[in-house]
Formats: sequence, C-alpha cells, structure tokens
Amino acid sequence: MPLIVQKYGGTSVGDAEQIKRVAERVVATQAAGNKVCVVVSAMGHTTDALVELASQISAVPDSREMDMLLTAGERISMALLSMAINELGGRAISFTGSQAGIVTDTSHGRAKIIEVKADRVREALAEDRIAIVAGFQGVSTAFDVTTLGRGGSDASAVALAAALDADACEIWTDVEGVFTADPQVVPEARKLHAVSYEEMLEMAAGGAGVLMLRSVEYARNYGVKLHVRSTFTGAEGTWITEEDERMEQAIISGIAHDVSEAKVTVKGVPDHPGVASRVFRPLADEGVNIDMIVQNVSDDGKTDISFTLPKADLPRALPVLEQIRGNIGAEEIRTDDEIAKVSLVGAGMKSHPGVAADMFDALAGANINIEIISTSSIRVSCVIRAFEVERAVKVIHDRFQLSTEVIFRESHPETLTPKLKVVRAEDDR
Amino acid sequence: MPLIVQKYGGTSVGDAEQIKRVAERVVATQAAGNKVCVVVSAMGHTTDALVELASQISAVPDSREMDMLLTAGERISMALLSMAINELGGRAISFTGSQAGIVTDTSHGRAKIIEVKADRVREALAEDRIAIVAGFQGVSTAFDVTTLGRGGSDASAVALAAALDADACEIWTDVEGVFTADPQVVPEARKLHAVSYEEMLEMAAGGAGVLMLRSVEYARNYGVKLHVRSTFTGAEGTWITEEDERMEQAIISGIAHDVSEAKVTVKGVPDHPGVASRVFRPLADEGVNIDMIVQNVSDDGKTDISFTLPKADLPRALPVLEQIRGNIGAEEIRTDDEIAKVSLVGAGMKSHPGVAADMFDALAGANINIEIISTSSIRVSCVIRAFEVERAVKVIHDRFQLSTEVIFRESHPETLTPKLKVVRAEDDR
Repeated sequence: MPLIVQKYGGTSVGDAEQIKRVAERVVATQAAGNKVCVVVSAMGHTTDALVELASQISAVPDSREMDMLLTAGERISMALLSMAINELGGRAISFTGSQAGIVTDTSHGRAKIIEVKADRVREALAEDRIAIVAGFQGVSTAFDVTTLGRGGSDASAVALAAALDADACEIWTDVEGVFTADPQVVPEARKLHAVSYEEMLEMAAGGAGVLMLRSVEYARNYGVKLHVRSTFTGAEGTWITEEDERMEQAIISGIAHDVSEAKVTVKGVPDHPGVASRVFRPLADEGVNIDMIVQNVSDDGKTDISFTLPKADLPRALPVLEQIRGNIGAEEIRTDDEIAKVSLVGAGMKSHPGVAADMFDALAGANINIEIISTSSIRVSCVIRAFEVERAVKVIHDRFQLSTEVIFRESHPETLTPKLKVVRAEDDR
Repeated sequence: MPLIVQKYGGTSVGDAEQIKRVAERVVATQAAGNKVCVVVSAMGHTTDALVELASQISAVPDSREMDMLLTAGERISMALLSMAINELGGRAISFTGSQAGIVTDTSHGRAKIIEVKADRVREALAEDRIAIVAGFQGVSTAFDVTTLGRGGSDASAVALAAALDADACEIWTDVEGVFTADPQVVPEARKLHAVSYEEMLEMAAGGAGVLMLRSVEYARNYGVKLHVRSTFTGAEGTWITEEDERMEQAIISGIAHDVSEAKVTVKGVPDHPGVASRVFRPLADEGVNIDMIVQNVSDDGKTDISFTLPKADLPRALPVLEQIRGNIGAEEIRTDDEIAKVSLVGAGMKSHPGVAADMFDALAGANINIEIISTSSIRVSCVIRAFEVERAVKVIHDRFQLSTEVIFRESHPETLTPKLKVVRAEDDR
C-alpha cells in the first residue's frame, strides 16, 4: 500500500474549521488506499503570539526555554487534528517530535535533524492508524526539546518521508504550486507541473518562498518526491523530483526574486592574497550568511569587494566589518539595503549560451541598471535597485515567454521552454 | 541547604507581569538560602481556551489527544517563568512532566502518579539551578502524555516534594490560607495557622476548594509539610502537617460547605441482605463517586436508601439507577440537585461529645431543616436545602465562636477552640 506523508502549514490549520477540512482531506487520502502520516505546523498565529509573550518577559530569551515555549504550538494543532480525524471515524494518533523519534543536535532554535527513528510512527501505520506528527520540533541528543528553525516543518516532513520510505511527500500550503514567477508580480505566470531538485534549490536560494533550501536539499539527498499543492483548491500542484524527460526539455524554468538582502561594499581593499579570507572568515564565524560575492578588477593595487547578506544579519555583521576594515587597511564600508536580486533559473541553460545575455538585454531594454552579476550553471542572478524589482521580473518573464509552455526544439534554441517560479508562501516554520 | 517546592496556580501566572512577580519570589527564595523546585500550572485561562477549541472540533474528544492538547498549557507557562527567572539573573531550567520523571498510569485525563524519578530535577538542583516543572502532567507507562485531572498541579508538587525529600511544599494561590469558614460567606472567618492532615482531608471532602483531597492524602502518606499561602500578599499562610501541640488544643477547626452535590433517593427497596451492594456496585463500576449514604429504618419490609454524588456524575448515574431499580424491585428513584452539605470539622471532637448536638441545635435555632446526617470521628455533615447554606455556615460559625482563637481548657469543654475553614480557591488544575 502506498505511503504518503502530508505536511500542512500554519495557514492550513488556522482555526477549527480549517482543521476539520484538513481532517477530511487526510481521511480521504487514506480511504483512497494509502497509509498516511501527517506533519502539522502550529496554528496560524500561535507562534507569533508565543513570541510576543516571551518578548514581554525577556529581550533575549534563553534559547532552550524558547524552544520549550514554541513547541506548545504544534502540540495544540496536532491534538486538534487528531480529534478532528477521529470525529470523522478515522483512527489518528499524534506524536511529538520526540515521540516520533526526530533526533536533532543541540542547537536550540535552529537544530539539525541527525536521525529519524520513527518506530512509533511505523507501528501506528502498521495498525492502519493515521500518524500525526508535530512539525518543526525534535528532541536533542541531550534529551531537550529543540526546534528546527525556518522551514522546520517541511524539513520534518521530508525527513519522515525519507525514514519511512514514503512514496511521496505532499507539502499542502496556501499557494497552488511553483510558478514561472510570483503571480502577484506577473499575473500571467504559469504553474509548473514539475521541476528538478537542482532547479528548486536555485529558486529557493533566489528567494522563492514556497520551499526552504534545506528541505529541498534533504529531499534530493534521500530521493524524496515532493509535491507542493494548495490546501484551498486541492488541485494537483508542482512535483519536485529527479529530472525527467519532461524537464529535460526546459531551458528556463522560472524567475525568483528576493528583496530580503542588503549589499555591503568594502572599498579600497589592498589587493593581495588572503584578503578575501580575512574578510569572510570572521563573518562566517559570526554566523552571517553571505550570498553573492563579487570582487572588482584591481586598480592601482586596491580593489573593492561587494557581497550580499540577509538584512537581518546586518546588525551582527557591521561591528565585525568595522574591525575587518581596520585589520586589512580598507578605506570604507558601505551598506545598502535598498537592493533586490532577480534570478533566472533553468536546468537547460548550461547547454544554451546566450541566456544570460538575453536577460541582461531585457533589463537594459527596461532601463534597469545591473549592480552585481553572479551565475551558476543553471542560474543567472542580478542585483538591481529594489524599487525596480517587479518591473524587472515582468520584462524577463516576457522576454523568455514563460507564460506559455513551449516545447523546446533542439534545432531552435531560441525557442525557450518556460518552467518554474515560486510565490511567497505562508509561514515557513 | 533546605529544599523548598513551590507550586504556583494558574491565577498566579495569569500574564507576563504576574509571571515576572512569581520569578522575583522564586529568586528571593533561593537567595534566602534554599534550593528551589517550582511546579507551575497553565496560565489563567489557557486551559479553558484549549478546551473550547477542542469542543469546536469534537463533542467527545479522544482522551489521549485531549491530554496532548492541554499539556501545551504548562509548557507555555513554565518556559516563560524560566525566562523571567533568567532575566533576573537566576539560572532556571524547565522540565515537562515526562522530563521530570513523573510516571503515571494510562488513565488519560485523570492519571494517577505511580512513580517520581526526578533525576533531571535533582541534577539541576545539585547545580544550584532553579528547576521549573510542569504541573498537572506526566508520562504514562505506555510513554504517552497524561494529565492528572482536578488538583493535578498540587498533586505534582506534593509528589515531587516527597521524591526530593523537600523541607516544605508551598502552595502559592489566590487565597491567604485555610479559614474557619469561607470568608465570602463569613466575613469574620479567621485564617488558621496550622491544621492537621486529617482535618484538612475532612475539610476537602466537605467541599473546601483550597486543596484537593488527593494532594492532602499524598502529603500525609509521605509526611510532606504543606504551606498554603497567597501569591498576592506573600504573607505566612496555613501549614498542613502532622498534629502538633498547638493543634491538639482544638476541638473545632472549621466549617466546610459544598453545593456541588446532588441527592438521590431509592424508595421502597426490599429490605434484605445484599441490597446495598446491588445498588452501589454498579454505580462504582460506572465510576460514579458516592459521598454520603444513609439507609432509613426498615418499615414493613421496605426501606429507602439516600445518597449524595457530584452533580456532574448524575447523567452517568441515572441510566444505571433505572436498571438497578428494576433489578431490585424498588419503587422509585428520586433525584434532587438543590441540596447543600455543611460540615463541621475538628480533630478534638472525638473526645468531646455534644459537638454534633450543638451543631443541630444551631441549625434548628435558624429554622433550617436537616435532611441527611453523616459523621466521622472528626466531622459532622448535614445535608440541607441549597438556598439555606450561607445562613447555615454563619450560624454554626457563631455558635462555635470560630472567629476568635480560644485556648481550650480541659475542665471547660464548652469553650471551643476554633480552627480551620477554607475558601474556594482558583483553578485547582
């Protein structure tokens, strides 16, 4: 019998009525001949409310206690979902992260899953029960309650799907799937039937909110088939799997954009070996996530190094940068938080030169200045002014005709097949 | 170094401000030279809100899932209290019932504590940390989360105090202690310095809400000294311990009253051996708690049996009673839920006849009819009409001069020493 892991995010279980609808879906999935394991996030605004309570008590709450606090959220939603399923005549049983055997390291607030034992989940499924598991949480090797940080519930679902050798991991959310661009920016953006793990990884890194990078990475490493679909329509969504014949036809999958980053430029850096390391090692030690890095061509023995990082990391990065400036004898540190990043992603672009040029051309045609360029084999990203980002996404979407599914013909590489892009999704807890 | 277990009820941790005040008290207790283990209930109305959510989903929620749901409440309060203590420079660590090693049977919703391992609590205390433990909850022998039912947090505190061999178990609550009568009924009621376990047991059985019977019983069995005191004033409250020289002087400790029971009369019961068993065995099997039982003198081979039970148990009891009526050939079942029970309690009354007569006399003087009488060696209880209960408590309180502390003189047994009575306390979770 097929085994499906279903994950429902916070907006899917926002109140009692929504929980009842999720219960109906779960019961229907079982009735269709599947074993079902459900991973559930905390209800809608529960987490925000708990964080607010903590902030009333402490400016910097102890991270172990914060995890203890926040994990109350899934406890509530999973118990209610179990009740709702039982009410429909189903046989559900809920498990905390600890009971489900989700063992993590001891990094409170952003724990990593080390092992998934899932013995009790397996037993429950063997008894034809529906296993409801708390997302976002685990138990550390020191027997403390941990949370998995952003995208944690997806990570729980993927890890469980891998451990249970599930046939699919369905991510039920408040968007219909992965689109060629954010439909709120490009109304004619098209929902994609399937994308590869690699493309999804680049999309996630590019700012697509529907799935966090870590979950996609985990899914790829363990070969878990992901299916992103909408709780509200129930329609087929987007599959994220190994490349298949369908995907191989695509050059461009879609456009991601991101306005959550800031740009830092270290000006007048002496241009000699080891300088980059002396800039980025201290930032890494401080836990600052660096995204793009660009170093300009050296000019009279001095150079400029620019990089992007999450705006949220700026307060931690700035004192470190000031120290670095003194240490390496740089002239100036400039920060700029009014930037945006636009990324064009497609597995086929590695065998099709000219994609980047087309993208630059589209931006030039709209008179949008490019400040930083960075590429991988299946992605081109440009940093531009934040206020121009929506226009940039639109002109690139148009240029590559992403709103119509075009069958790629090898002899006419100029005919580009559009594929994925992602919209911002609900809570990514 | 003395070890104190402090229990704070839901009204003591109703919001962030109250939690901060509790944190100050806990830190001060440690600073005064004690090791401190704190047992905490869910915040104010958290439990009600969770119960309401469950009721929106299921009329009869699964009891295992209900326990999973409700235990989110203490998780929130204990994490917040730990944060608040840390914020004050204290070193707190919170433990769930499971982490604290509170092992229960598998009766979800009303689990009984089987064992308290408390290893992690001991370790934390050995490291001079303040251990915060979730009240009301434990882990069953089947590794499921359980709740202890009414008065559960007090039970957690007493059980932990016994396991840790604590010097005292302080029950911090919204009343100042144990009074000679409910101060809301008798404004001149007096707070008692100390009462014995036995007296407190009778008071609790008589309807005093400040402590549940099970906690007092547990405290007596393990010799845990209880101290009931007010979170809001911080003043010395009432000690509940073994009888001491002070208590031995008392004849009357106080008056309890209870309007939560109903009366059932089985009329026209054939008066032959085994009939009582055939009435009460099926009720016990159904889990109905019977309090007082009175059987009238037989009259031409038929008799009436009256008993009291919690009003809440009536819906379960009635179908059983109807069956019983048929089985034993009784004439009629009558139920009456407008009764009240007034109990006079005092360890000294066993050696002083006439106390019961004085009580009946006081009621007669107020023209209050007595419907059922039941006595133990240290208690006299009367069932009366519910609407007369406050008047009854007042006249008895006056008759025994309970508002003034009178030193009992052996040669003048008519001089009665007043002692305890209890007011209804906050959430008894």
